[in-house]
Amino acid sequence: MRLTLQTDYALRSLVFLATAGEAGSTAQVISDRFRISKSHLVKVLQRLRALGYLETTRGRGGGVKLACAPETIVIGAVVRQTEDDLALVECFNKQDNSCPIIGVCGLERKLGEAFAAFLAVLDGCTVADLALTPGAWARLFPETR
Amino acid sequence: MRLTLQTDYALRSLVFLATAGEAGSTAQVISDRFRISKSHLVKVLQRLRALGYLETTRGRGGGVKLACAPETIVIGAVVRQTEDDLALVECFNKQDNSCPIIGVCGLERKLGEAFAAFLAVLDGCTVADLALTPGAWARLFPETR
Repeated sequence: MRLTLQTDYALRSLVFLATAGEAGSTAQVISDRFRISKSHLVKVLQRLRALGYLETTRGRGGGVKLACAPETIVIGAVVRQTEDDLALVECFNKQDNSCPIIGVCGLERKLGEAFAAFLAVLDGCTVADLALTPGAWARLFPETR
Repeated sequence: MRLTLQTDYALRSLVFLATAGEAGSTAQVISDRFRISKSHLVKVLQRLRALGYLETTRGRGGGVKLACAPETIVIGAVVRQTEDDLALVECFNKQDNSCPIIGVCGLERKLGEAFAAFLAVLDGCTVADLALTPGAWARLFPETR
């Protein structure tokens, strides 16, 4: 059980950009800092932009920054939007289900309760709650734009 | 985010065998009923046997049944034992982590809390809670051994 790399990179980027503040950053800097694939990261940033979380500017001095206050970006919402598959098991997706005991087996309901509990924790948390302190930021990334 | 097929098949098999009771069943019957790969299922049953949840008998009339009362088989424990990878994101696995903000980023702690909430629901539930009623069982599988 693992979150997708898309969700992982999306959450890290939002935390990074919340810490970077108004100055923002660039895909190059973020991929360098996290030592992750820039091409994969660019796709994730495009998705976050399409979702309204980021704004980007082109050209010299261009880059990426949060499009809204970090207090308004709920982690549970981001996870729901960036995970491509939230069907924990086959019967969560009624169209693909072939399990004959669906509807009389308690597993679907119980796994659904467990997944709701997982998301409820993340719904109580925003990007602002996860941002680094200015001290930790300066120590880790002294050269970051 | 998805549980592995191993966990899915393990949970279904345990629910099926709890419902089958002392008579047990066979890998052939279970794979037929769930319309799943018998070879994959056999590996899952072997794993459940190694974990002490099942006992098998060979030969004519042989088969598989629960090795303990379904009330003693906790779903959260089975999920922990059958999921090969419980590292929701990279930083959950300290040995593989390359993320530089580990320790100062709040994401690991918050995702850990969410995952604990997920497992806590499953820790409050046993295979006995999920077994089918005799009526549902007879309606779905009238010919099951």
